[in-house]
This record gives sequence, structure tokens and C-alpha cells, in this order.
Amino acid sequence: VSPNGTIEVIPVLGIGEVTPGANLGRLIVEAATSQGAGLVDGDVVVVTQKIVSKAEGRLVAVDGPKALEGVVKQQSRRILRKRAELTISETHHGFVCANAGVDQSDIPEGWASILPKDPDASARRIRAEIAEVSGAIVGVIVSDTFGRPWRRGQTDVALGVAGIPAVLDLRGTRDRFGRTLHATEIAVADEIAGAAELAMGKSRGVPAAIVRGLSLPEQEGKGSDLIRHFTEDLFR
Amino acid sequence: VSPNGTIEVIPVLGIGEVTPGANLGRLIVEAATSQGAGLVDGDVVVVTQKIVSKAEGRLVAVDGPKALEGVVKQQSRRILRKRAELTISETHHGFVCANAGVDQSDIPEGWASILPKDPDASARRIRAEIAEVSGAIVGVIVSDTFGRPWRRGQTDVALGVAGIPAVLDLRGTRDRFGRTLHATEIAVADEIAGAAELAMGKSRGVPAAIVRGLSLPEQEGKGSDLIRHFTEDLFR
Repeated sequence: VSPNGTIEVIPVLGIGEVTPGANLGRLIVEAATSQGAGLVDGDVVVVTQKIVSKAEGRLVAVDGPKALEGVVKQQSRRILRKRAELTISETHHGFVCANAGVDQSDIPEGWASILPKDPDASARRIRAEIAEVSGAIVGVIVSDTFGRPWRRGQTDVALGVAGIPAVLDLRGTRDRFGRTLHATEIAVADEIAGAAELAMGKSRGVPAAIVRGLSLPEQEGKGSDLIRHFTEDLFR
Repeated sequence: VSPNGTIEVIPVLGIGEVTPGANLGRLIVEAATSQGAGLVDGDVVVVTQKIVSKAEGRLVAVDGPKALEGVVKQQSRRILRKRAELTISETHHGFVCANAGVDQSDIPEGWASILPKDPDASARRIRAEIAEVSGAIVGVIVSDTFGRPWRRGQTDVALGVAGIPAVLDLRGTRDRFGRTLHATEIAVADEIAGAAELAMGKSRGVPAAIVRGLSLPEQEGKGSDLIRHFTEDLFR
């Protein structure tokens, strides 16, 4: 028995190659059940962008660096910085990331994946699929791997969210000396996506994880809640 | 029994108020043991900056907003942005964060905590204390709560690291189509700090967590490995 308050992060193994039109919710429920980790109410299921894009047919033909550059440009609302092969741009959703999320890893030669058109809608659909197949009321996060300014290395963050808050608002909460808290808005969906990466990253090609024991309220958070608007950003 | 590859995040309860000179390693081992979660080899122990600063006597008297501003200035190598009460600065360590990490929450009135002088040294000391008291060879992360540009909400990140890599270098790893990976350097220490926050944040005043089952190599990572150098940063 685990101590009180323990959170478990369980990689979902054996999902296999995902093809356009796949019912990801069903694939995840079946894989989780067959490894003895059937979903329960309150679980948060983290699904990588790559298989969401594959299931949604978000693949484009790319026949060289010039074509890739064109796709990146098309997926960008604006280009923020460019250096050698690295383009940092703002996507049409408002995400700031490398190459507008266009990615050629784990994709057949000659193709690239682009981000889901509406990652929150993707998360809501997977949540509904999971409820239909298993009866479990879960939260869903569609995650991707982003770099950060100021800090080296990449972490997984939330693009789309369903059924849980994306940002936990602690404003007004007081510390034990009666003062309001320093950390007032916690980006829980990003922390959950990062925790899931730790479990998925232990083996190659694991595209989903279950985070169990979070005790988050059921709430209609959105990935877009995590986007700092251009006008309130001091660094763009 | 948890499925293969599961990671557990266990909040360490009952540490109590920390005073200057405290042996944090001993406090953590005793609290973890008394809740039935005695430390084992390979665990990563995440300790919040706040109790590390308290144990190291990193508290300064602050008798008003003007004095606070002076402390922030003194703790900064350079000020990057300033807007109303918010100062974004680069600390002498190279961290970019709000108010140079100077913080008045969970501190008695009239005082503020400043960051540990050398968070990697703090992590190494706690690691040695834990080994001495329990015999367990663990990784240690000293964490703090930072905001980010571009994304709303704060997440916990690693200031100091001991015994594990801070950044997992996957350069040269190939996907199943034989191409090199998109995500090549994973900031695992930041993801672990964020995962720990999820468990600590479930109740008030929990200053440490154990992350179990990561299977990271024993390695002398450093918190400073996570600092992107000024000259290679496109956004400063």
C-alpha cells in the first residue's frame, strides 16, 4: 500500500502504430486494461501529440528542407526568431515553440506531422471515447515536447486539456502566517504532462500514460488557458 | 502491484518547521520512514528551496517594500524586465525568475527568504546526509516555483541537483524509422520537480517528496546544467 497522497504515473504500453481515424480512447483503454491498469474515475490520461496528429490525419508530405520550411511557415502566425535550422514561431493556436510543432520524428520518410487543429477538442473527444468504452470519467491532456527560453532542455507540456483545470488558481489562499501565497497560479496540466514524460521516456515509443491519485476537481480547463497572451507577455 | 514502469510520487509529511542548522537529510529520512516510505537506492528526493534556505539561514530582515526592492536588487546580476510589483531578473547563479527568488510566503512577518548560495552544494549535502542516516543512495533536487514567458501559470523547476543527470542527453538516439530524435535533450530534473509539486501541492506546507521508480543513471548532474547561457539565449 502506498503512503497517503501518493501519485502514480503509469506508462501505457502496447498501443502500437496509430492510423488515421483511430479511436484513441478505445486503444488506450484496451492497452491499459491488458496491463492491469484499467482506468478509474479521477485518472488523468496524457496522450502525446504525435499519435493524436496521426489519428487525425495531420500528416503532410515534405520532400526536402525547402518544403519543410514552407510547412513551418504555413503553421505559424508569426516567426519570432530564426537561427540556422531553428525557427521559433507562434502557431495559429498561440503556442510558442520550435518549428511551429512540425515534426519528422517517428514519422515515415517524406512526411511530417503538424499539430492538431484544436488540441482541446482532441482532448475532449478522447475523454468521451474513454467514458464510452470504459465508463471512467477521466481528465485528458494532449502533450508535446517544447523547449524553453532561459533554461536548457525540453519538457513535455499540455497543448489540449479536458475535464480538469489547466491552471490551478490559488489566488487568495493564505500561508500559515496569514499572507497570500507567492505561487498563485500553478500550471498543473504542464506539470502532469512532464510527469507523464518521465514514465513514457523510460522506453521508446510509449505514446500515453495514466496519472493516478491527483484529486483534481472535474473542471473544463483548456490548453489555451496556458497561453500567455501576446499583450501581457514581457518577452516577445 | 503497480504495472511495469510505474513511477510513484510520495509527499513527505510531518517535517515540521525548519530552523537554521537543521539536518534536512535526517528530517526527511525520519519523516519518510514514519509514514512507511523509507528511502531506497534510486529514489529521487525533491526538497523545496524554502526549507533549504531556512536550514541554511538564508533569511533577511525586510521592513517594507523599499527594503524588499533593495534585497531583490542585491540578489540580481541584472534586471531584465520591470512592471509594477513584478521584477524579472537574472540571479547571480544565472536563474531567470521573478524577484530574484526573494520570497516572503511561509516566512514570519518582517523577513524574506533568499535562494541558497549554491543550490548544487545544498543538494549534495542533503544527499550525503541521507546516505549517512539511511544508507540509501538517492538523487536530490532542490526545487523552486518559477513563472515562464509565453505560458501562464508557474511550475516547479530544479535549482540544485545531486546524484542524477539534470538533462538527459538523447542526441544520437534514433527513432524507429532510423531518424534522429526531435526531442534530444530532456530536462528531467525540471520534470521531476514539477511532478513532486503535484504531490506536495495536494496539502499545504509539504516541503519534500520522493519520486520512486525513475531508473535514472547515477550521475553528477548540476542545476547549472539547466541554465541556458546568456549568449545562446534568443530571448534575453
